[in-house]
Amino acid sequence: MAKLPNITTHFSEWYLDVIAQAQLADHGPVRGSMVIRPYGYAIWEHIKAVLDAEFKNKGVQNAYFPLLIPESFLKKEAKHVEGFAPELAVVTHAGGKKLEEPLVVRPTSETIVYHMFSKWITSYRDLPLKLNQWANVVRWELRPRLFLRTSEFLWQEGHTAHATQAEAEQVALEMHEVYVSFIEDYLAIAVVKGEKTETERFGGADHTFTLEAMMQDGKALQMGTTHILSQSFSKAFDINFQDRDGIVKSPHCTSWGMTTRLIGAIIMVHGDERGLILPPRIAPLQVVIVPIYRKDDERDAVVSQALKIKEELKNLGIRVEVDVDDTKSPGAKFFHWEVRGVPVRLEIGPRDVAAQSAMVVNRAGGDKVSVPFNALHKEIPAVLEYIQAQLLQKSQERMQKRWQQGEELKDFGPTLEKENGFFQTGWCQSADCEGRLREFKGTIRCVLTTQQHKKCFACDKKSTADVLVAKAY
Amino acid sequence: MAKLPNITTHFSEWYLDVIAQAQLADHGPVRGSMVIRPYGYAIWEHIKAVLDAEFKNKGVQNAYFPLLIPESFLKKEAKHVEGFAPELAVVTHAGGKKLEEPLVVRPTSETIVYHMFSKWITSYRDLPLKLNQWANVVRWELRPRLFLRTSEFLWQEGHTAHATQAEAEQVALEMHEVYVSFIEDYLAIAVVKGEKTETERFGGADHTFTLEAMMQDGKALQMGTTHILSQSFSKAFDINFQDRDGIVKSPHCTSWGMTTRLIGAIIMVHGDERGLILPPRIAPLQVVIVPIYRKDDERDAVVSQALKIKEELKNLGIRVEVDVDDTKSPGAKFFHWEVRGVPVRLEIGPRDVAAQSAMVVNRAGGDKVSVPFNALHKEIPAVLEYIQAQLLQKSQERMQKRWQQGEELKDFGPTLEKENGFFQTGWCQSADCEGRLREFKGTIRCVLTTQQHKKCFACDKKSTADVLVAKAY
Repeated sequence: MAKLPNITTHFSEWYLDVIAQAQLADHGPVRGSMVIRPYGYAIWEHIKAVLDAEFKNKGVQNAYFPLLIPESFLKKEAKHVEGFAPELAVVTHAGGKKLEEPLVVRPTSETIVYHMFSKWITSYRDLPLKLNQWANVVRWELRPRLFLRTSEFLWQEGHTAHATQAEAEQVALEMHEVYVSFIEDYLAIAVVKGEKTETERFGGADHTFTLEAMMQDGKALQMGTTHILSQSFSKAFDINFQDRDGIVKSPHCTSWGMTTRLIGAIIMVHGDERGLILPPRIAPLQVVIVPIYRKDDERDAVVSQALKIKEELKNLGIRVEVDVDDTKSPGAKFFHWEVRGVPVRLEIGPRDVAAQSAMVVNRAGGDKVSVPFNALHKEIPAVLEYIQAQLLQKSQERMQKRWQQGEELKDFGPTLEKENGFFQTGWCQSADCEGRLREFKGTIRCVLTTQQHKKCFACDKKSTADVLVAKAY
Repeated sequence: MAKLPNITTHFSEWYLDVIAQAQLADHGPVRGSMVIRPYGYAIWEHIKAVLDAEFKNKGVQNAYFPLLIPESFLKKEAKHVEGFAPELAVVTHAGGKKLEEPLVVRPTSETIVYHMFSKWITSYRDLPLKLNQWANVVRWELRPRLFLRTSEFLWQEGHTAHATQAEAEQVALEMHEVYVSFIEDYLAIAVVKGEKTETERFGGADHTFTLEAMMQDGKALQMGTTHILSQSFSKAFDINFQDRDGIVKSPHCTSWGMTTRLIGAIIMVHGDERGLILPPRIAPLQVVIVPIYRKDDERDAVVSQALKIKEELKNLGIRVEVDVDDTKSPGAKFFHWEVRGVPVRLEIGPRDVAAQSAMVVNRAGGDKVSVPFNALHKEIPAVLEYIQAQLLQKSQERMQKRWQQGEELKDFGPTLEKENGFFQTGWCQSADCEGRLREFKGTIRCVLTTQQHKKCFACDKKSTADVLVAKAY
């Protein structure tokens, strides 16, 4: 393994090299496809476990809908097919025969979910219906980038139906907040909350709420979206229920999703010149113990002490391993676990055993401190919490530092194009002005909830809302 | 909801009706497709959790490989493509264009897994490599049957590579035993272990080990298979490693899988005239408490007592709910939870509150017993364990009772065709004799490890091994 490319000057190459060296993922044989390797998948398993429990707390149940969807289903909602048509993979033959109707590999499942809802929902008693599925989806991708844009990715997609628009809106915002807490509290990433413009909205949605995070190069990454679909799909799929008042109505729907691109965000927000840095709460391994010894007689004492500490930490619920690979030097082991971003390294050598203390190394801050064995049960959980908080703070500070106010596009546009960063500016709501951002490779990431600009960034009209402008992945 | 069809005389209709009434699954819009509804999916989640922990205990790591596989990959292993070609779904168009090479929706992942292994494995240090994935697969199905045969199903597929054939064989048998224990200890289903004949073997395997269970109608269901692939795929996919001795060799591989059809087995082995019966260890809900009251002043005392007991049982790790739906009568609630197979029902009425005891009803045995509130924390876990053991015993007894010895096909064939059941008989190893079973709708389910028949069931040759003959799903 060679040294990583410079993270400041060669961010893209650094990103791909971290993925390779930490063995998170690999390219598959078909252009745009990705293999998620065990270490990368273990991160996804931790993300899944936390989110799944949060969804269930909110009364959402998991289910599973078919991968292959009749092509005609997508056409039932005009804006939906318009949004997804260019990205579809289509099955035309199966079981040795040409199919009468081609089947689309799901790019998202609204159409098939709402088709089934029309069979299941007949009365207000069947509402609310709140389902989620963990699944793979396919959206053909010509400019692939591991974890960020691949032709197939893993995600969760929530789909809910409600008797009233008010309830649908409330649940959409509730799930949006679940996402915010998860990203901040578990991934330690600062996010901007806001609504997508009509141009950037999900096909078939009335409102799309988004979370945007700043990567270390100053570009934005969309972390997850929540859609208020209102009655667009329930009308297209003929879902009807008899309400308490006896009147037959169409339910109001929401959908919301987060994907394996979150792993890309973790890499790009927290990593450093030595590789990945994982937030402790979702790290597959939180502590690695490296026994250090030269002679065989030293080995026994050091390794048995390491195993003893491992058991003690394991009993506290900490994910910990001892690296007992005798073919590797301590230096090689440090490198191995550093590039993989394990938050805490514990070093134990013969002198540490004699002094009954271990060296605790913080992967994020780089600081080392000697901790007595009998204090590890207190110190290690504290260090893990400290690292978790430290990572979030760093992410918040980075965003604040690179958050600029922009008045006129001709002034801030060149800076955006050259230096990236987030720009808050005023907007008149016209798609034409929005389109002007393309000249500088920017887009409106979201409409903000606070307003301090009076004029549109691109024309002389009044601004009706502030927007966040950035380049995006 | 109507009464279920007669389980003895109309087993097929009963099976489909149980699935509908318990809301386990539904047919999707494309012929052969299945939607797994929340209650069915919750059973799968419990199955997954147990198996996943078992795999990880054996040093297996999860990963994720792409859904779409170049068609040419399947052709690299001759027997493999022969086995799967008729069942393939093929993507010919994607991203608005015709693809240069069609892509197959994975029917199983050996080819793409071993393609990646050839990139990852170069030295004996990279071995053993033991991976598993939880995924969806597609095998086109013209005679679909929910959970048993659908065009798409969910499963786990393990794939391992080893330096020696001995190690591959050992791991295959180890995973086979993991399956046996899981099916017996968690699903409470008796199984016959054995090897598949060459005709029934997985395409590309040297040996396929199977587990066969008897359904209530006397037919067999294959519960899971484990394959020793030897070097067939590693040679076809050019996987090479330098061994300790410096010589370049091909690794020896295994693969093994279990699917959502296990849910079909649970239904067909344990169900009764009132619906599903779930083994407590994988039941999403183990205990349902039904408060019984007529007047409003009774309601408060009864419901608050029910909630108190719920908390107590929950703290013991028991999955328990109180059915507080005021729109339903107790009788309707009994019916609702019976058809869903919840192992234990607790009834609490005003008299029970006065007597400080509850009625405990065993869904499997039907027996009722009054238990004092202060003994529930002991009795409920005991009843759940008792039901778990009772279900396994019933399944074992059923198989023993319908396990017959057959000498000549002309004698036992008509009984097999008419009455189903398992037949142990002798076999000369010829595919011709094996094919004769088709006249009576039977197949060799597996080659047994014990031998007591001297002559082949269909010819005059000597028998070399006893086989299990049955009709199969």
